[in-house]
Amino acid sequence: MTPVPAEAGRNTRNVMVSRAAFEVPGFLAGAAASGMRYEGRLDMALIYAPDPTGCAASGVFTRNSFCAAPVELCRDRLKGGSPRAILVNAGIANACTGEEGKIRAVEMARIASAALGCSADSVLVSSTGVIGMQVDLDSVARSMPALVRDLRPDGWRRAAKAIMTTDTVEKTASVKIDPGGGSIITVGGMAKGAGMIAPDMATLLVFVCTDAALSPEVLDYWTRAGAEGSFNCITVDGDTSTNDSLIVLASGAAANPPITDVGSGESQAFGRALGSVLRDLAIQVVMDAEGATKLIEIEVSGAADRESARKVAFTAANSPLVKTAFFGEDANWGRIIAAAGRSGVPLVPERVALFFENLCVFEKGAPVPGEETEREASGIFKQKEIHVRLSLGQGDASFTAWTCDLSLDYVKINASYRS
Amino acid sequence: MTPVPAEAGRNTRNVMVSRAAFEVPGFLAGAAASGMRYEGRLDMALIYAPDPTGCAASGVFTRNSFCAAPVELCRDRLKGGSPRAILVNAGIANACTGEEGKIRAVEMARIASAALGCSADSVLVSSTGVIGMQVDLDSVARSMPALVRDLRPDGWRRAAKAIMTTDTVEKTASVKIDPGGGSIITVGGMAKGAGMIAPDMATLLVFVCTDAALSPEVLDYWTRAGAEGSFNCITVDGDTSTNDSLIVLASGAAANPPITDVGSGESQAFGRALGSVLRDLAIQVVMDAEGATKLIEIEVSGAADRESARKVAFTAANSPLVKTAFFGEDANWGRIIAAAGRSGVPLVPERVALFFENLCVFEKGAPVPGEETEREASGIFKQKEIHVRLSLGQGDASFTAWTCDLSLDYVKINASYRS
Repeated sequence: MTPVPAEAGRNTRNVMVSRAAFEVPGFLAGAAASGMRYEGRLDMALIYAPDPTGCAASGVFTRNSFCAAPVELCRDRLKGGSPRAILVNAGIANACTGEEGKIRAVEMARIASAALGCSADSVLVSSTGVIGMQVDLDSVARSMPALVRDLRPDGWRRAAKAIMTTDTVEKTASVKIDPGGGSIITVGGMAKGAGMIAPDMATLLVFVCTDAALSPEVLDYWTRAGAEGSFNCITVDGDTSTNDSLIVLASGAAANPPITDVGSGESQAFGRALGSVLRDLAIQVVMDAEGATKLIEIEVSGAADRESARKVAFTAANSPLVKTAFFGEDANWGRIIAAAGRSGVPLVPERVALFFENLCVFEKGAPVPGEETEREASGIFKQKEIHVRLSLGQGDASFTAWTCDLSLDYVKINASYRS
Repeated sequence: MTPVPAEAGRNTRNVMVSRAAFEVPGFLAGAAASGMRYEGRLDMALIYAPDPTGCAASGVFTRNSFCAAPVELCRDRLKGGSPRAILVNAGIANACTGEEGKIRAVEMARIASAALGCSADSVLVSSTGVIGMQVDLDSVARSMPALVRDLRPDGWRRAAKAIMTTDTVEKTASVKIDPGGGSIITVGGMAKGAGMIAPDMATLLVFVCTDAALSPEVLDYWTRAGAEGSFNCITVDGDTSTNDSLIVLASGAAANPPITDVGSGESQAFGRALGSVLRDLAIQVVMDAEGATKLIEIEVSGAADRESARKVAFTAANSPLVKTAFFGEDANWGRIIAAAGRSGVPLVPERVALFFENLCVFEKGAPVPGEETEREASGIFKQKEIHVRLSLGQGDASFTAWTCDLSLDYVKINASYRS
């Protein structure tokens, strides 16, 4: 595996991402209601590549020790396989379900493969929802004919709706680029996730498809780089889930000259496109986080190295006191400073500066004095999207994390999710 | 410094701690209202040792890079000094206040020393409250005569009330022991803290006094051991504050044969007494945490080493999803398992077992089936104090953390604390 440099997935300049309806040549998407856990709503999604050659594929998964059965299935099947379909259910996570859970994940794939007429091991499976419950295979089998009938090139928004749990809106993103040479390539996909969101593959489920022709190695490189620059930069509550999965499939239907050299201009262009879609989906997840009312971008600059910047950014991004201050629209810079100070990265207070947007509120070890500063800061905290910059004064490295506020609704939603 | 073994501060067997009124021979305590930030309530406290020889003293302080001015002052003055007094104000933390803050901390000590008639450098200063505001020295000077007049042997409950911020009850604890040899020794003190509570000296302020005669080395050893076994085992929100201070003074008024050997039976008895008082105060802090409705004890056993056990315990203890589940009285074991799985400690799901009190809810990689288990678990989650035990199946090490639930009131309190 080619190592991914820290910044590889973060270059998304000059890429216009659309959240409107889209199609990815070579793929169909569909949705159906199985009634497995939710009454009368879409809860099954299917992505399918009709071409029997199958896809180049790559995936990044949760590092949680208790990873769910479908995660194990996908990890196995992505080792050198050529998948053609992803079947997803929402409502039951099939995590912490023992041997029986593994058997049911395999059976879900088999049911889909029989309906689609493809081989069983070319189907990937993904689940999201409550931990510890078994998926109901009868519901899967019963809804399968409707799900297959629903498949169509523009089925992505419906599919994105079907994979939601506590999400309030469906999340899709797509771009079209010319990587050089005149062929147009599309990258488009969907994500779900609203709680149990934290780095180390920081979402529940993300599925992105492209019609680009490229080698599995190039796809894998940009998938890992893209995850690093998107979902591994967000947090809602610091909780990494058992089911986090990012899967990228490439059909080759664009018929561009195949991209096989990671370092080529075409590869870089593809990487930017994929990275842009992933980053847009990641930000959509934070914006729709459980109870969230604000999107907070925390940029830590002037760090000795990227890991230090990351640590400081996430300590602030996960601090309940910082997050409740944003919810209360209280420009309480002291809590951000206090969080930075406990991050484990040694800081020299006199060198640290804190900005809300372009307003400096803290420097040289003390707050910037004045009623004016306080009033401007309060104004900024009323915004729906707030940019915070913390300059450490130690070096050139930086890291940007995205988080949201911690609201009364977050507690309400999570005090009663299961019951 | 003699290193403190991991378990040194945790042995509190056979020690009965009282939360009722107490006196510590050799010390007076008092309170007054300065009007500095709160109207019409006690906000200044003073602890004073009238004997001019001064005290053996030890302190443990926050490791936050932005430590407050009074923390720096205490660190300096505890290096070989013999302090006689601690002056505390509540409402303004004197943190992130630059050079001016340092000058004001020194000036607070000077004002108290002039009123008490002792040397300026024998006074320690402690502050708690909002970060970034300067303490008002006029308020300190104006209230000082009343504060000195209020000093009395049984003034601890009033003093404990004066140091509160978002606390709802004052917190004191004391014990009397015979360390061997017939002398009776008292250890008693007070704590405040309700938010910004996390390990690495996990409280805002704790002041404990004893009349024991002992060497500074013995006192220092048991202070560090006691902190490790008490305040470093609790969390409310994972935020380590800028002002955390634990200070222990010993007057020697008990006139016991001085304890100078850490390993002696008398020293061990003193260590148990101090450890018990600290642990009781720490648990009082968690019980009175901002918005808390429940005290949760998370015991991780069967770990390969203590650090692994600590990591797993605190990952669960700080998880917003775990804490909201307790608030919602939803026996959602999956969230505890998911938190353990993301702690960074590699776990083998099949070896892990989870208990609520003595009820096993998860083992061999899957939940214990049955309506009965679910009903019993729900009953346990209605309790005010809940014991959770997670057995990792990897070794003999263990760690117990105390935390509370995350409630709607936590968000309400912290969305509006400053304004």
